[in-house]
Amino acid sequence: MPDPSSPRRISRRGLLGYAGTTGLGAAAGAGLVVAAGGGSPAPANPAGPAAPVPGATVSPWGAHQPGVAQHPPAVTEIVALDLLEGVEREALGRLMRVWTGDVEALTAGRGAPGDPAPWLSAAAADLTITVGVGPGALGADRFGEGPSGFAEVPPMTHDRLEERWSGGDLCVTVAGRDGTTVAHAVRRMVADAEPFARLRWRQVGSWNGTDPDGRPQTGRNLFGQVDGSGNPRPGTELFDDTVWVGGGRWAGATTMVLRRIRMDLDTWDDLTRDEQERSVGRTLADGAPLTGGAELDDLDLTAQAQGRLVVPLDAHARRSHPSLHGGRRIFRKGANYTREVETPRGARVESGLLFASYQADLADQFVPLQRSLDELDQLNEWTTAIGSAVFVVLPGFEAGSWLGESLLT
Amino acid sequence: MPDPSSPRRISRRGLLGYAGTTGLGAAAGAGLVVAAGGGSPAPANPAGPAAPVPGATVSPWGAHQPGVAQHPPAVTEIVALDLLEGVEREALGRLMRVWTGDVEALTAGRGAPGDPAPWLSAAAADLTITVGVGPGALGADRFGEGPSGFAEVPPMTHDRLEERWSGGDLCVTVAGRDGTTVAHAVRRMVADAEPFARLRWRQVGSWNGTDPDGRPQTGRNLFGQVDGSGNPRPGTELFDDTVWVGGGRWAGATTMVLRRIRMDLDTWDDLTRDEQERSVGRTLADGAPLTGGAELDDLDLTAQAQGRLVVPLDAHARRSHPSLHGGRRIFRKGANYTREVETPRGARVESGLLFASYQADLADQFVPLQRSLDELDQLNEWTTAIGSAVFVVLPGFEAGSWLGESLLT
Repeated sequence: MPDPSSPRRISRRGLLGYAGTTGLGAAAGAGLVVAAGGGSPAPANPAGPAAPVPGATVSPWGAHQPGVAQHPPAVTEIVALDLLEGVEREALGRLMRVWTGDVEALTAGRGAPGDPAPWLSAAAADLTITVGVGPGALGADRFGEGPSGFAEVPPMTHDRLEERWSGGDLCVTVAGRDGTTVAHAVRRMVADAEPFARLRWRQVGSWNGTDPDGRPQTGRNLFGQVDGSGNPRPGTELFDDTVWVGGGRWAGATTMVLRRIRMDLDTWDDLTRDEQERSVGRTLADGAPLTGGAELDDLDLTAQAQGRLVVPLDAHARRSHPSLHGGRRIFRKGANYTREVETPRGARVESGLLFASYQADLADQFVPLQRSLDELDQLNEWTTAIGSAVFVVLPGFEAGSWLGESLLT
Repeated sequence: MPDPSSPRRISRRGLLGYAGTTGLGAAAGAGLVVAAGGGSPAPANPAGPAAPVPGATVSPWGAHQPGVAQHPPAVTEIVALDLLEGVEREALGRLMRVWTGDVEALTAGRGAPGDPAPWLSAAAADLTITVGVGPGALGADRFGEGPSGFAEVPPMTHDRLEERWSGGDLCVTVAGRDGTTVAHAVRRMVADAEPFARLRWRQVGSWNGTDPDGRPQTGRNLFGQVDGSGNPRPGTELFDDTVWVGGGRWAGATTMVLRRIRMDLDTWDDLTRDEQERSVGRTLADGAPLTGGAELDDLDLTAQAQGRLVVPLDAHARRSHPSLHGGRRIFRKGANYTREVETPRGARVESGLLFASYQADLADQFVPLQRSLDELDQLNEWTTAIGSAVFVVLPGFEAGSWLGESLLT
């Protein structure tokens, strides 16, 4: 059992707090831990929580799994597994206890129990590991009934889903600074699940969530768009209401939709900058609304210029605006992916976004939003969902407990 | 044309110097540039050059392309391209001038000329871009005769080469801190080459070259081995003699062999730690020779214990030891790769190493070493070369000049 008082652990409060003038660099150089109190938003920190401090580790314990609210790290690897036949409640409990031990060790920078290569677990990796369960892991013999509104995303007109990027009974998201450490942690988790589940798919992406001075920034997708400006800010009531299941046996959980969105960079690059900006409703330079202000300011959906709406009716930021959805929101995180594909005419690179949406109630928050975008969204011209999966992210756990304990016992 | 006096540029000397107590973190926090003089080795810095400072950029100018000697960064993406028919000397000159402009802009954190998404070029990415040319780009109509000893690697008994990871007329290696920025730079370079060349393959890997305190470390492959301890140290005469072509029209160039080495982690994990360590001749904990001392100390190939050689006859570190090869050496850099593969029984992850070897004379330095390992090396049991390619890394260029200018004009 790791020592929760370890000086290199960032407290949950510290994780969500503001690193401020301490900054990424100075803290690392001095070997300090960022645990500044208070969760008050700071203008230099649009995306919410502070960027991880190299060499620090993120505590795995608390009311929620910490990877959800964590500022997007450099590397995210997500795997889905399918449960083997006959794996029911008791076996799931065994798996969850094994995984809990793995999560505690790997996020502390130690090798997982029995790891033949513990040196690949590095404290410098700022690792989080987030465990979720899919529809196939629910039901009376497994995790029981899911939280309210949890179900598969209904088919969308623009979907071109491939089985190889879709579905799954279990999901493990490993995120951190270093791709090798992340890959090793994923391998350990998948290997330790071998008696219970088989790998279904694996997806890997990157995100640039820090500016040249090491301060957190929202980050950009491969179209070059600042992506995630409209997110509720971790540490706020709005975030908590949006993301966490508030009560019942799933209290502290959230639901996750993962969509693999292929992006056609070539045709996108053919657009003028004006066309690109109007398709979203934000400037490319800094993500500010086309109606003025700074990145985090709200869009003025009524603003007109030269007799037409500044943010067009089919602009992505209008179609997904909470005011069109009764104030309902999601919390979204992206990871850019590229993948080499063999074709008869040689190699090609497929590019896109691993789009993760977190919300308390999938049917109430995510589905209407997605339907609205499916009906009308300029971005549909250059983006195609080729994978889709839904999971309940298990509630957090405290030291001495384990993932899903209250749900399985 | 970027300003070479830009305060954020690290000088070549600074790049190879010792960051010392300034450290990664403090320098970044204070916005300083690490340009400490002197190239004297420091014990805390086994791999040679200092780790990049976040937010700083690496100057593209000098006698050599800087990516070769650069401390291995987090992400390395390598692409090979095939020249289109009819692309000869003059067209190659046009491509090299375009690429030179791209390299100067992208490594400065600016968008490449004409880049529709310049915001994806970030100064925080510590980018280097290294350009090489393959056998098909040589000859009278193209880059002329290659440097002494430059040729394809002859077939090795243990090779299982796949066309999709082998060969190529041109090579671009982009390395940096952030996968999104790296992928964007690769995309720009490939797009700008479109009138001249077509993508042949693309390979991506990661490396953990910094310890939890942000100091450079040698790093580990996916077997968990410290990998690269025997390297000559950048900034030393031994390094220069090993790597750089010393005179003639290719002065300042080097040759690069890229091998895609699949690693069977499952069977490797089945070995005892003793078996793992004896297969290489080094400890797993810190890469020190099994005959004692620290990571950078030389192996004692004669040492015996209990009547047997401590470093077995077929240990990798013995078979590749310079003393067995007339003192000849290579400079090697690795990047760990993982790739999801579809199989009839579901997804599988292929793991391995993108192994890059740099040497002045490929036939004289690399080939005998590779033959020796092909004949006898315990690691052949768990590793298989599935790709192979050779390139001449062009000499460096100064501001106002361009890549390959003296070779093409």
